[in-house]
Amino acid sequence: MRNEKNKIDNVRHSLAHLLACAVLQKYPKAKLGIGPTIEHGFYYDILFTNTHESGHKLARITDADFPELEKTMRKLIAQKLPFSGRKVTLAEAKKIFKDQPFKLDLIKAFTSPPAGGKKQPLTVYKTGEVFLDLCRGGHVKNTSEIDPDAFTLTHLAGAYWRGSEKNPQLTRIYGLAFNTKKELDTHLAMLDEAKKRDHRKLGVELELFTFDERVGKGLPLWLPKGTAVKNEIERLAMEKEEQYGYVRVSTPHLAKQSLYETSGHLPYYADGMYPPMKMDDGAYYLKAMNCPHHHVIYASRSRSYRDLPLRLAEYGTVYRNELSGTLAGLLRVRMLSMNDAHIYCRKDQIEEEFKRVLALNLEYFKLFGLKNYSFRLSLGDPKNKEKFVNEPANWKYAEGVLRKILKASGVKFAETRGEAAFYGPKVDVQFTSVIGREETMSTIQLDFAAKKRFNLAYQDKGGKENHEVFVIHRAPLSTHERFMAFLLEHYAGDFPVWLAPVQVKVLPVANAHTAYAEKVFAALIERRIRAELSPANETLGRRIRAAELQKIPYLLVVGEKEQSAQSVNVRKRHEKETKNVSLERFTKTLAETIAARKE
Amino acid sequence: MRNEKNKIDNVRHSLAHLLACAVLQKYPKAKLGIGPTIEHGFYYDILFTNTHESGHKLARITDADFPELEKTMRKLIAQKLPFSGRKVTLAEAKKIFKDQPFKLDLIKAFTSPPAGGKKQPLTVYKTGEVFLDLCRGGHVKNTSEIDPDAFTLTHLAGAYWRGSEKNPQLTRIYGLAFNTKKELDTHLAMLDEAKKRDHRKLGVELELFTFDERVGKGLPLWLPKGTAVKNEIERLAMEKEEQYGYVRVSTPHLAKQSLYETSGHLPYYADGMYPPMKMDDGAYYLKAMNCPHHHVIYASRSRSYRDLPLRLAEYGTVYRNELSGTLAGLLRVRMLSMNDAHIYCRKDQIEEEFKRVLALNLEYFKLFGLKNYSFRLSLGDPKNKEKFVNEPANWKYAEGVLRKILKASGVKFAETRGEAAFYGPKVDVQFTSVIGREETMSTIQLDFAAKKRFNLAYQDKGGKENHEVFVIHRAPLSTHERFMAFLLEHYAGDFPVWLAPVQVKVLPVANAHTAYAEKVFAALIERRIRAELSPANETLGRRIRAAELQKIPYLLVVGEKEQSAQSVNVRKRHEKETKNVSLERFTKTLAETIAARKE
Repeated sequence: MRNEKNKIDNVRHSLAHLLACAVLQKYPKAKLGIGPTIEHGFYYDILFTNTHESGHKLARITDADFPELEKTMRKLIAQKLPFSGRKVTLAEAKKIFKDQPFKLDLIKAFTSPPAGGKKQPLTVYKTGEVFLDLCRGGHVKNTSEIDPDAFTLTHLAGAYWRGSEKNPQLTRIYGLAFNTKKELDTHLAMLDEAKKRDHRKLGVELELFTFDERVGKGLPLWLPKGTAVKNEIERLAMEKEEQYGYVRVSTPHLAKQSLYETSGHLPYYADGMYPPMKMDDGAYYLKAMNCPHHHVIYASRSRSYRDLPLRLAEYGTVYRNELSGTLAGLLRVRMLSMNDAHIYCRKDQIEEEFKRVLALNLEYFKLFGLKNYSFRLSLGDPKNKEKFVNEPANWKYAEGVLRKILKASGVKFAETRGEAAFYGPKVDVQFTSVIGREETMSTIQLDFAAKKRFNLAYQDKGGKENHEVFVIHRAPLSTHERFMAFLLEHYAGDFPVWLAPVQVKVLPVANAHTAYAEKVFAALIERRIRAELSPANETLGRRIRAAELQKIPYLLVVGEKEQSAQSVNVRKRHEKETKNVSLERFTKTLAETIAARKE
Repeated sequence: MRNEKNKIDNVRHSLAHLLACAVLQKYPKAKLGIGPTIEHGFYYDILFTNTHESGHKLARITDADFPELEKTMRKLIAQKLPFSGRKVTLAEAKKIFKDQPFKLDLIKAFTSPPAGGKKQPLTVYKTGEVFLDLCRGGHVKNTSEIDPDAFTLTHLAGAYWRGSEKNPQLTRIYGLAFNTKKELDTHLAMLDEAKKRDHRKLGVELELFTFDERVGKGLPLWLPKGTAVKNEIERLAMEKEEQYGYVRVSTPHLAKQSLYETSGHLPYYADGMYPPMKMDDGAYYLKAMNCPHHHVIYASRSRSYRDLPLRLAEYGTVYRNELSGTLAGLLRVRMLSMNDAHIYCRKDQIEEEFKRVLALNLEYFKLFGLKNYSFRLSLGDPKNKEKFVNEPANWKYAEGVLRKILKASGVKFAETRGEAAFYGPKVDVQFTSVIGREETMSTIQLDFAAKKRFNLAYQDKGGKENHEVFVIHRAPLSTHERFMAFLLEHYAGDFPVWLAPVQVKVLPVANAHTAYAEKVFAALIERRIRAELSPANETLGRRIRAAELQKIPYLLVVGEKEQSAQSVNVRKRHEKETKNVSLERFTKTLAETIAARKE
């Protein structure tokens, strides 16, 4: 494997040189930066400004130049050019690269490193007789080792020289390269799929959410269709949590400084929080977590051993002060709605409660058709008393319980020592998305620290106050924002009917059928099915195609025949055959399917 | 009427003097402030410190002193004392009140008013030979005009002399007084009812919400039972709004400064908003209204005439920076969840849309059994171009439409010229609560200004851009906070079963029936009925009484007989007779009743 890795790395590195060589053939005055390999390919940073033959000051390369550059590169490959390297002296190097200011800059950095830096030898690599580059090596012996059909140039980006905005901005040309054309094609197909499944693209196409400069960065506005999906997910959570014995609470979005001093968020987490708002009675903060508010509710009255476990659930909104430059789509936002709950239980209830939380997680995964996941059990470290709360007996007991239940449940899981939260062991669920992206979605965390910070207690059977109240934090459905991004990618926007923003579209064949179409529409709304009516102002074919682009699960075409039979012609998504069903049967069956979340 | 009003006012004012006289008889060193009449009664401000015969430095009066004071007052009344007034000179006045520093302070204020003030004559009023007060008059001629059984002292409060905290704090003694004992009793009964229905008291007793010092003022935490009620109300709104053709959106709780500059909230409404939070990309504000976010959604894509009306609904949270001292229960809070929606329509759609909003309002009022309400149509003023947006044709048209529909609907309504919002005419609904409190709950407002500020437009039939987009703001169910306070008072906590936090309580007669009780409980949960199980650890009688205090609509007692018959013994709230019903029939019927919101 190591050799394989080296081999493809050498191919990619060599292609970077060939790219630079091809660029210089077309733009002899181009100034070269660096050209390393990256995952799946390579790039080269090049300054084009004022270098075109035409002398035009802003000569720039575009995607349209790629075919020509690739052609040149393939020609160079076909010449079976050898790569060979050798050491050079400082004087020699300066002479070779006298017209390449960035190379001279590198030579200086290698030979006169800043204080504490290490001098580096100067080596140059030659490609046949056509190209010479300052380079540490790592190349194929001969370009004949490169499959000319297994690489492609992909896109351009701007990149400051040595990453500093004080330096000139170069153009970075990216390429992909593999051992075989087949590998390249597979990778391109995967990228294509990722693009199609990109939640930002689908969010626009399906009209789910939008952003607005005046509202601000990282603050999605959920449009009607996105809100429909979001509300379905919330309804699911409320229903399941009800079945699992949770009760719901609803807490304010902010609190005084003192609450976050009690919780320890201040000062330790202040950077992640929004700045405080000074009111006439002190500083208020938007909440970054729901736990402190839930702890306050637990502690708002005395609790008996019989009241436990108490499971407080809330789709709670939390606010995180992320830097504006890091915000992206739904994956990095500044306001999140979390599928949150906190379970307050006695030590002897931890096992049963964790088991139930795990079962709820698995039920969700099954419902959404998620299969590529594994659990990660993060343990504390009894030796590290700084990093982990010092309750050795509780750590030992709880870790044993979690391990036992994970084993018994038969799920894939791995243990990592020393990766737990400060306050207790945790279990994360790691997903591999359809397009190969790894993501931690759900988490279950045990908390030994809250009981002391918030003075949580209960009266035991003998009437004595017991302070061993354990808290389980859990969020199986993550946040609305992250989960929606994940689901969009997972389904490629093709939501199951119960989740689909529009479940049915009614299409009258012609204006003459509008009245009947309205009756069909009303029958659907009556059953609380999310429906739309498409007026017959365009050809049926065009309207069907438009509805298909919206990925609507059921299209009902109604014309003469349907009208007289009080039926609908059903076109189910991804099915070629249409069928005629009575209106009554269709609406009844679909309402049942949706209620049962069968499709 | 005027005479009647004068008469009772004279009685109240005279009682204030008699109260002061009674106080001086017991505490001769008491220092008198002022003793005016108020709605339903009177008060007198008196300094008691260091005035008791015993010489105790902190001598204070308590409620326990009221009977003795009232007795003295009644004795004075029985003496048929005449009231008579006369003018006095400054020197005379100073002499009379030489031991009364607050009176001397008043004398000074009357005779040497601050610059611009008017000198006032000095008059004193004598009650028989027992009491002399500095007073402008307005008394009965003789105490025989006062019904000795138609007044009572009610409570104490602290009050700074002349309202300034730099002055000494006096004790204010409040009294109620009417013409007849019957009137007094009616008023006392009403106060008693108000106390019983006080939402803060019921909120604690029924465990609906709580406040916490660390979380902060004006920020209720909804406990599980309160959240259940809140969610039921929200579910109702979502269902009705769905039926009425609204779509839901979900918008961030904050926005950048620029949004509120566009909307005009900044700078005009800045005082009512939370202070800004400086982020790396500018200042962000918590929203005080949902409208700007909804307008952004409207404007996020092009709209055709066919897309209108667009009805965007959201239980949106808004944040108001109220002074901490003004916050009280749920009626004055700093974070509110509003039953909000904005209807975007063409001019020719205003009529139909307003009609539908009115119909929805009336449907709600009927459902909640609200009868004491009237509508208030607030109109603009064509002459006042400062106070009202200058679109005379739109004002005229819209006001005509609103009036016409209110008339046609047959509801009680009154018009007020010049009381509209800046941006258009509005209709408020004025409620008189069970205990006589007046309250504006719902509002429907037309908005002519938003279209310009947010550049709202649609493509008309001819494909041209039309900027005449009208906005209707409406919130029939007010905010969760205010509406919940209102409902608690309205129902005195006796919620209809569909709203009740706990709908059914299951009570096994003895431990032997626990298994069957659990079966009953599970059957209820299965039907999504909110139920609780009361373990047989106390006598049945005590458990029934506890459940009655919680105002639970249905109690199901299950013992030997019910177990063998698979039935339940139903005790419906406020009904004396219990009855046996099969478990299956009870759960099915109740689920239907709840779904239909029949009780």
